[in-house]
Amino acid sequence: MSKVLHPVGGRPMIAHVIDAVRRAGIADVALITGRDAEKVTDAARIGDVTITPFFQSERKGTGHAVLMAREAIAQGYDDIVVVNGDGPLLTEAPLLKARAQIAEGADVAVIGFHTANPFGYGRLLVQDGELLAIREEKDATDEERKVNWCNSGLIAINGGKALSFLDRITNNNAKGEYYLTDLVEIARSLGSRVVAVDAPEEEMTGCNTRAELAVIERLWQQRRRNELMLSGVSMIAPETVFLCHDTVIEPDVLIEPNVVFGPGAVIESGAVIHAFSHIEGARVASGAAVGPFARLRPGANLGRNAKVGNFCEVKKAEIGEGAKVNHLTYIGDAFIGAHANIGAGTITCNYDGYNKFETRIGANAFIGSNSSLVAPVTIGDGALVGSGSVITADVPDDALALGRGRQEVKPGRAREIRERNAAIKAAKKKNS
Amino acid sequence: MSKVLHPVGGRPMIAHVIDAVRRAGIADVALITGRDAEKVTDAARIGDVTITPFFQSERKGTGHAVLMAREAIAQGYDDIVVVNGDGPLLTEAPLLKARAQIAEGADVAVIGFHTANPFGYGRLLVQDGELLAIREEKDATDEERKVNWCNSGLIAINGGKALSFLDRITNNNAKGEYYLTDLVEIARSLGSRVVAVDAPEEEMTGCNTRAELAVIERLWQQRRRNELMLSGVSMIAPETVFLCHDTVIEPDVLIEPNVVFGPGAVIESGAVIHAFSHIEGARVASGAAVGPFARLRPGANLGRNAKVGNFCEVKKAEIGEGAKVNHLTYIGDAFIGAHANIGAGTITCNYDGYNKFETRIGANAFIGSNSSLVAPVTIGDGALVGSGSVITADVPDDALALGRGRQEVKPGRAREIRERNAAIKAAKKKNS
Amino acid sequence: MSKVLHPVGGRPMIAHVIDAVRRAGIADVALITGRDAEKVTDAARIGDVTITPFFQSERKGTGHAVLMAREAIAQGYDDIVVVNGDGPLLTEAPLLKARAQIAEGADVAVIGFHTANPFGYGRLLVQDGELLAIREEKDATDEERKVNWCNSGLIAINGGKALSFLDRITNNNAKGEYYLTDLVEIARSLGSRVVAVDAPEEEMTGCNTRAELAVIERLWQQRRRNELMLSGVSMIAPETVFLCHDTVIEPDVLIEPNVVFGPGAVIESGAVIHAFSHIEGARVASGAAVGPFARLRPGANLGRNAKVGNFCEVKKAEIGEGAKVNHLTYIGDAFIGAHANIGAGTITCNYDGYNKFETRIGANAFIGSNSSLVAPVTIGDGALVGSGSVITADVPDDALALGRGRQEVKPGRAREIRERNAAIKAAKKKNS
Repeated sequence: MSKVLHPVGGRPMIAHVIDAVRRAGIADVALITGRDAEKVTDAARIGDVTITPFFQSERKGTGHAVLMAREAIAQGYDDIVVVNGDGPLLTEAPLLKARAQIAEGADVAVIGFHTANPFGYGRLLVQDGELLAIREEKDATDEERKVNWCNSGLIAINGGKALSFLDRITNNNAKGEYYLTDLVEIARSLGSRVVAVDAPEEEMTGCNTRAELAVIERLWQQRRRNELMLSGVSMIAPETVFLCHDTVIEPDVLIEPNVVFGPGAVIESGAVIHAFSHIEGARVASGAAVGPFARLRPGANLGRNAKVGNFCEVKKAEIGEGAKVNHLTYIGDAFIGAHANIGAGTITCNYDGYNKFETRIGANAFIGSNSSLVAPVTIGDGALVGSGSVITADVPDDALALGRGRQEVKPGRAREIRERNAAIKAAKKKNS
Repeated sequence: MSKVLHPVGGRPMIAHVIDAVRRAGIADVALITGRDAEKVTDAARIGDVTITPFFQSERKGTGHAVLMAREAIAQGYDDIVVVNGDGPLLTEAPLLKARAQIAEGADVAVIGFHTANPFGYGRLLVQDGELLAIREEKDATDEERKVNWCNSGLIAINGGKALSFLDRITNNNAKGEYYLTDLVEIARSLGSRVVAVDAPEEEMTGCNTRAELAVIERLWQQRRRNELMLSGVSMIAPETVFLCHDTVIEPDVLIEPNVVFGPGAVIESGAVIHAFSHIEGARVASGAAVGPFARLRPGANLGRNAKVGNFCEVKKAEIGEGAKVNHLTYIGDAFIGAHANIGAGTITCNYDGYNKFETRIGANAFIGSNSSLVAPVTIGDGALVGSGSVITADVPDDALALGRGRQEVKPGRAREIRERNAAIKAAKKKNS
Repeated sequence: MSKVLHPVGGRPMIAHVIDAVRRAGIADVALITGRDAEKVTDAARIGDVTITPFFQSERKGTGHAVLMAREAIAQGYDDIVVVNGDGPLLTEAPLLKARAQIAEGADVAVIGFHTANPFGYGRLLVQDGELLAIREEKDATDEERKVNWCNSGLIAINGGKALSFLDRITNNNAKGEYYLTDLVEIARSLGSRVVAVDAPEEEMTGCNTRAELAVIERLWQQRRRNELMLSGVSMIAPETVFLCHDTVIEPDVLIEPNVVFGPGAVIESGAVIHAFSHIEGARVASGAAVGPFARLRPGANLGRNAKVGNFCEVKKAEIGEGAKVNHLTYIGDAFIGAHANIGAGTITCNYDGYNKFETRIGANAFIGSNSSLVAPVTIGDGALVGSGSVITADVPDDALALGRGRQEVKPGRAREIRERNAAIKAAKKKNS
């Protein structure tokens, strides 16, 4: 699988990058792909950005890669911004900075970052506000090696001059590759102003291994958690809350430790998500409480002040205002009316092996514990279902329904069984 | 909500601060409050400390705030200690140090802390054991800025002289506020000895945002985990164990990863808490085992060697010595006798929508899996309940009870259904 | 309990140490034990290493301890390597380095480590490739204290000369103990070459408290997670995945956050382990999915593309290819055929209080939700069990089985109950 398809915060890296590009005011993206070209292109289509894919069949360096999009570059944009697909922590800020430099007259703006460990990076050699050169580690003097401002590989170029610059890149070097970094020298030799802009090191983090992907995920999660806390969300142990790229949590929500959000979760102001909850494709209204140990699956929609408690699973179901689904329950393909109470161990039997069917439970209904509601079935408003019932037919409003065996008691029978078992055990012991 | 009401370790910040004050031997607290005065006062009432609230209607600086409690200060205490309500990591140690200085003749003792990043803090300028001044960042010389001993805002004052010092504070400054830090200069100008005492930086951590609150929570959790490990508790992954301020865990308890304690948990020596457990208001006796994936709610009381296993919830229930509640079970409002075995999927049906009722299960009873025990109901000692039974009436000691439908088998019927469904599917396909 | 019996990654520290020794090509281990000698010896028996225990009844220093194994040392090995039992992060690398030095002519090779905080450690004083001395903190000059290469206590010795060296150690020192570190001086005084080799500080971490044990566990977990990620396993939040020493996870497995592995787990390539899963003694085949909130216990064996979902427990059971156990289910002592579908809330009633019995479910069978399968029982291929059934007798292939009460409906009865309860409540209120 192409590296840029690996997910961060539940969506492919490339989508994060395109999102930063979009936020930087860029509407047209030339996407240079290698393997999985189609999947990468699909993953890149977010918002209203126009994606034009270009296929790079040979890998001959970054300068060569960019020229795959010659046709796009030739359309005459004011500026061209080159970014990497594997840097999902990128935000719009450095791109806006670089674009502003082009708008103000620079022809090339290289995005750099300061780091405590510059070893191995190309160093940005700047004087009087101009970027003189990007010096590779191996070519650097001892003095230059001390420079800790490094090349990120991201670059903005005057759109009108981009092709003339790019076409001057040669492969007269040890590896025989075309390096985008040569633009600095080329542009300067043509009398252009070349500058460097600064970006946070974190945003420039790339990714080559699964361990590095995990580091990026951790940084991304930290960032999103901090954004949410800043917006007014409370988290007791933010490092144990896992968010998805599209997780919406409104202010004044409390998230307890160990909560995992899959895609499509919306938590409204005033809700509480208790520990050990797993929420995906679900909406939780104000005043509602989830967990601990609850799982909301796609289509779960909890009304105001509704509760879904421990060891409960809810899927494709409306849980009405103030309704309670508190213990060891499966609710799937269902509508539960306001203030209904679903007893512990209730199961909506929504699947017959071939099709899924709906269960409707009326407002103020009370479903006794350990009941099985065999869908399609409707329990009326204010109806009562006795504990342990199997309900296969509709129950009218205000009716009581029971569907269970009658209790028989056999006095002394447990003692007989116990004694028989003890005797068998003793006999076994004797024989062994 | 007032900042000091936000919880750390499950109790309001202000209660942590008052607790440190109490442990420093202080019995009378003048509590200066702004908004939520009543709630803050309630939260501050812990142990046998006397809390006298004073309301500050205008915010005119720390010196002004302290004078709200003029009446209390005037009572003639030996020493007055001023602390912040938003520093819940405070312990008694720095307060005792500062009080000792007053007892030994200093009139003002400022509590400071050493930090690697002093920027922005007032620096403590000390010479020959005397605190000469607290120099604010903006007024500091380059040399003074290098001082990394900083003002925490906490201060102890000679009780007899406190008012005469405090009344001399003026608001002749840029913000027009009364600064408590002016006490240093005032006291010195009156010939008093002013000193600084040192406190760990961590204890001085204050809190202005939800992200900072999360940091404080993390530090508090680390401290409590370390205290427990030091006392003989084993934790495989302490960073995944979340404690409450009143969590009691005795030595030689093993806590596996991902355990959350709510208020009121007591775990006795020799118990094991397996991964993914949530425990609140519950007691777990020696030799008992909880989890993985267990939830103990308030009133759960596990006897010696009792077991509560995965996907089980126990609430307001005694679980007798050696009794087992191992799988997917809800036990609420119940008494379970010693060595009883509760089968998988058992539900005590304790609620009829109006009232809660009790279930009593005798010693050595065996409850077959997936049974529903409709309370109020009593299962006798040594009784047996057949799997899948709904039990609505008491079962005598040593009796066998069954309450379930008789099995019917319809040969070939599943095949017919399958074939019918396949035919429907095929027809649909043809028509589409 | 002896310190070296405390587990790291689910096995005793001593076993980790012996494993490193084994990987360093050492086949014979002289194990010097104090308390819990028998248990320690048992724990040390791993792989094909020969363990010969020696009991140290008095603790008179490291030199004395090693001489407990005089008999073993006297057998004439090429080299003798001395390691500590409480350093479970040790790998074979430093041991191989030290052994190589002996093979190349050194008579003593001390294993050292570089550290930022050398305070308290014996410093390695090296010149021209020879170790001149190990200088204890208290005896060191200011210059020597700056040395940050420290003694780990691990040492390799020429096997032929070991006894003659060891017998020269005296207890003429403040504590009256025999120090192994004296070997350096002794060997040098006899004209032997003494060298130091370097090891990573982390590998030398010892353990004296439960808090230190937790640190070692954390380091060990980090190392194993990184090894797995390097081998091609994906983890979204590696710091929340807890591994066991024998956990096998093949490449291209995805592990979501909060997963705990007990001993004996094997996850095959292409499986997915969702969040909040607990897996022990279980095998998960390619394409299978586990969790979230699933527990696999010993003997669970999931076939290709099988699924075990939320709040499900599987123990000693084969789950056939493509079979689904998705919701709130207990499967114990069972065989489930390929593509069978087990409905929500199903319980295999495998225990009668005395013995465990088997449940067999045929291929393509469909078990309706909330069913109880009372073992021993066989459900045939393609059979259907109606929701909420208690199945006590075998169900033939392709048959439909039902075992549940018939539903009765009492119209208006719920309203009567509601009104009666409201009246009681009103009466109570009036009287109070």
